[in-house]
Amino acid sequence: MATETWKEVCRRKREEQAASIPTTWLLPSLPPASTLNVLGIPRTCGLLSEKELEITELDDIAQLLESIETGKWSSVQVVTAFAKRACIAHQLTNCLTEIFIDKALERARWLDDYLKTEGKPIGPLHGLPISLKDQFCIKGLDTVMGYAAWVGKTAEEDCTLVSLLLELGAIPYVRTNVPQTLMWGETYNNVYLRTVNPYNRLLTPGGSSGGEGALLALHGSPLGVGTDIGGSVRIPATWCGLYSLRPSYNRLPYQGACNSFEGFEAVPSVLGPMAHSLPALKTFTKAIVNAKPWDWDPEAVRKLWSEREEKLDEHGQGKGLCFGILWDDGLVRVHPPVGRALEMTKAAVEAAGHTVIEWKHYKPLEIRAVLNALFLSDGGTDFVAHTSLPPHELLLTTVFPRPDSPFSHPSLALPPPAENTLLLPHPSIPVHELYSLHVEKRQLAKGFLDAWISSRTRTGTGRPVDALLAPVMATPAPPHGRNAYDFYCEYWNVVDCPCVVLPVTKVNPEVDRKEPAWEWRCQEERVVHELYEPELFRDMPVGIQVIGRKQEEEAVLSIAQLVDDALKSHAVAKQDELES
Amino acid sequence: MATETWKEVCRRKREEQAASIPTTWLLPSLPPASTLNVLGIPRTCGLLSEKELEITELDDIAQLLESIETGKWSSVQVVTAFAKRACIAHQLTNCLTEIFIDKALERARWLDDYLKTEGKPIGPLHGLPISLKDQFCIKGLDTVMGYAAWVGKTAEEDCTLVSLLLELGAIPYVRTNVPQTLMWGETYNNVYLRTVNPYNRLLTPGGSSGGEGALLALHGSPLGVGTDIGGSVRIPATWCGLYSLRPSYNRLPYQGACNSFEGFEAVPSVLGPMAHSLPALKTFTKAIVNAKPWDWDPEAVRKLWSEREEKLDEHGQGKGLCFGILWDDGLVRVHPPVGRALEMTKAAVEAAGHTVIEWKHYKPLEIRAVLNALFLSDGGTDFVAHTSLPPHELLLTTVFPRPDSPFSHPSLALPPPAENTLLLPHPSIPVHELYSLHVEKRQLAKGFLDAWISSRTRTGTGRPVDALLAPVMATPAPPHGRNAYDFYCEYWNVVDCPCVVLPVTKVNPEVDRKEPAWEWRCQEERVVHELYEPELFRDMPVGIQVIGRKQEEEAVLSIAQLVDDALKSHAVAKQDELES
Repeated sequence: MATETWKEVCRRKREEQAASIPTTWLLPSLPPASTLNVLGIPRTCGLLSEKELEITELDDIAQLLESIETGKWSSVQVVTAFAKRACIAHQLTNCLTEIFIDKALERARWLDDYLKTEGKPIGPLHGLPISLKDQFCIKGLDTVMGYAAWVGKTAEEDCTLVSLLLELGAIPYVRTNVPQTLMWGETYNNVYLRTVNPYNRLLTPGGSSGGEGALLALHGSPLGVGTDIGGSVRIPATWCGLYSLRPSYNRLPYQGACNSFEGFEAVPSVLGPMAHSLPALKTFTKAIVNAKPWDWDPEAVRKLWSEREEKLDEHGQGKGLCFGILWDDGLVRVHPPVGRALEMTKAAVEAAGHTVIEWKHYKPLEIRAVLNALFLSDGGTDFVAHTSLPPHELLLTTVFPRPDSPFSHPSLALPPPAENTLLLPHPSIPVHELYSLHVEKRQLAKGFLDAWISSRTRTGTGRPVDALLAPVMATPAPPHGRNAYDFYCEYWNVVDCPCVVLPVTKVNPEVDRKEPAWEWRCQEERVVHELYEPELFRDMPVGIQVIGRKQEEEAVLSIAQLVDDALKSHAVAKQDELES
Repeated sequence: MATETWKEVCRRKREEQAASIPTTWLLPSLPPASTLNVLGIPRTCGLLSEKELEITELDDIAQLLESIETGKWSSVQVVTAFAKRACIAHQLTNCLTEIFIDKALERARWLDDYLKTEGKPIGPLHGLPISLKDQFCIKGLDTVMGYAAWVGKTAEEDCTLVSLLLELGAIPYVRTNVPQTLMWGETYNNVYLRTVNPYNRLLTPGGSSGGEGALLALHGSPLGVGTDIGGSVRIPATWCGLYSLRPSYNRLPYQGACNSFEGFEAVPSVLGPMAHSLPALKTFTKAIVNAKPWDWDPEAVRKLWSEREEKLDEHGQGKGLCFGILWDDGLVRVHPPVGRALEMTKAAVEAAGHTVIEWKHYKPLEIRAVLNALFLSDGGTDFVAHTSLPPHELLLTTVFPRPDSPFSHPSLALPPPAENTLLLPHPSIPVHELYSLHVEKRQLAKGFLDAWISSRTRTGTGRPVDALLAPVMATPAPPHGRNAYDFYCEYWNVVDCPCVVLPVTKVNPEVDRKEPAWEWRCQEERVVHELYEPELFRDMPVGIQVIGRKQEEEAVLSIAQLVDDALKSHAVAKQDELES
């Protein structure tokens, strides 16, 4: 193998991957490239039984868990159903990396036996298959994470998340695709190539947890775990019509997972769940937190799940909340359907008896500048290191731009640039300059906190705003290579607020008309505006973020549930109105 | 003032300070330099009434608070007593920086009126004077922090700690001395000069919270707040015979306090209380935590005081605990009285029904190397910046040594080196090297955690060790300029364990004989050994640390209370034995 080029290594890895799909689970025929929306194919392809369709289309994992516990379905049945559907999803969107069905089924059989013998589940996630982003090391499997150089990097032990999931009874069965370096809101790398959006395969599922997004949208998983340093669970969640949680730093254990930009601690990446419902996010988060991750991860916050906070003790028990609403981040206006999603949310929560006040970002330009400077602080040393051994492409698309350059350069479009084209954005800075950035970041976080607390005078509740409502992204899922403006997500990574993404609506070209041009506040605003074409985005999902305060995961999940319920009731009420 | 030299600035500041002591509180005569132990002078000097002696010699602040609440004493009386005694302490040890008695008394009067009018205290620390290290900014006062360049640096607002203390009803009245740069376990700077130990003025009180140590030892404060990045509350606590808590990162709010090495986040400094009893530490910590510092400090951990953890729910309700005991850090053997303090503790906790097993440090050399490299990472840029404007002395004593040099160089002895002598230890490293150090530090923290958890197999309780017992420092308080080995403290800053210091015994030259030389494991071990002279240290206090797990402040305070009670009962039992 000594003479194998990196391209041969990647090809071999993909061949091994293809061979890991049971041949009976191969689609009889692949849809033509002109079939853009592939969401219906799992139902129509004939590979899934009625029962398997039923199993994989439940939104709340609590029902799955209960059905396994009561013996309605075995874990083997559930794992088989999701594994099969995951393989179908992969054939349609290229969403997977490692596929290890046999291992998962062996564990499912063991858990089924355990349940029979012991008469009770082994833990709160007994028998549940869970998909994982291609960072969460599993003993004996490669963790490639999009780097050709990491093919063959076999994990010697499970990361903490995997250890805890096993302890809780869950069953990892597939891992999912990422972009090289992880620092991009799309999903493309040299090894596994590109993942596409099952709502429209010309569009991206987002990233960096984009494999999860595509897989979950096709119901190839009941719950997946991604990571987020600047939107990486929220972008694919919203562009694939899903729910997700970006928790605060270290509430969930990152220990032992692979990462890029290792040792960068100023704005730590966090891991977060993505799923088909809010209760699923809560079940997962509560189970992990109560498994005491601080016994495994030296950075994990020692705080059990707080029932008191979940019941919204600090938010008037959820009655008469006051939300701040962020229509605009001060830099880039959102696309019309994104604004409409926010308007729908405002109307729904008001109809449910809450109030909504205007919210303006605290110093967005300064926060963006600090974050960019921090992201560029090592001058790309980490990325270059991992693409230099053996030397292979550092994809232009995955190197974020200089702060002074237009972010959406034509070179970002397909196809990827020529081999070994590097765009190093910035030289490494000396340590004392980094420490100045840390100080600046802390001052900005303090200003943001003061702004939140001082909203007390405007809410009428005696409390500061209970949560914020905000866009997730300025746009619906764009064509491949065209995403670059993530600041609606990134802001919250800097100030470390927990964010819940929920789906609200879909693009309706009849309603969501393109606006005429206006005076751009920055180059990005023009580029984002020009990207919008109603027909291009037809029926693409659009969501919002519900944002709480640092380490307030329990409360923000409960508040998001109130918002989600309000949206659903309001939709029903409006429908009734139309029909009466 | 444009032509004032930095030495003139410092002299003027000291003159202003001297003028801030009420003339009626000046000692009729200062003891001669040959009077080494000055602990008795507050009692004999005639400035304090019997009532003032009673007030200032209560160990538990709960009694003070109750006496104020029930009207036995007014806050004005209590503040007057402590302020007067603080001024006496200052004349004996040079422990104070800012002295603002009038402001404190005005607030005490206001609080006394409030209590009369409202019939209840304004908060859980109503009327209590609290002393603060010279980092905790108070609006309208300078925060000099040992830098000539900072004279005249008037705070525009209170730091979060001060804001919370005011909200809780406490009364700041003095601030206390520190070493230049804060990065030294003694207390000397160009502005306020040297603080000495009231047990023996030839010896250091320790540092960097050394002003607090000397002040508290003389009962010039019921409770003081210091900070700790490598032992800075624990060193002066143990060398001055006090109790203290070094909490986990960000459990208590640092926001708005001045600091050196700003923006250094790898091993954050924390703030911690120092007092005459464990209940005092608990009262303070609980009050601050329950005042929700996360509404003020964006870094503060959102975790209310846990009654469940305080009751030792995770430690068998405090029955039959198993302690690990660290006799030696693997690098430098402790002085005989320090070893004896540990032996006494072991015997006492065993007599109280607990067990004690041997504990060895996980990778001390590696942890020390990473910490040194982190401390040196900016090449002294921060320290030089603050001593260059206007240019003044960067004291040799306050620049920690190169890892490869003997730490206790003869130049560390008095007097301080000539003006503008700089010993820059190291060049600034590039950012990517810092990130490698972060990774290494995290791996070491993980190894340490695994070692703790795996002790489960050796404890016999089914749990890992409940806490560790360890030395605080290898030596009792040394002569000025001779302290340099802080690693018995520093280790815990790296792995972020909460540590409680408690006093155990005093040096007894008849028992604590000097050991013959042995084969040194490192140069420091030789230097520490040579430092020990039983007579030099006669009657100096010696304590131990009780160490818990990260963010387990409630539990470690409760466990330390069990240890303290055991030590006291055991001493009584042994006394009874001798007498019977």
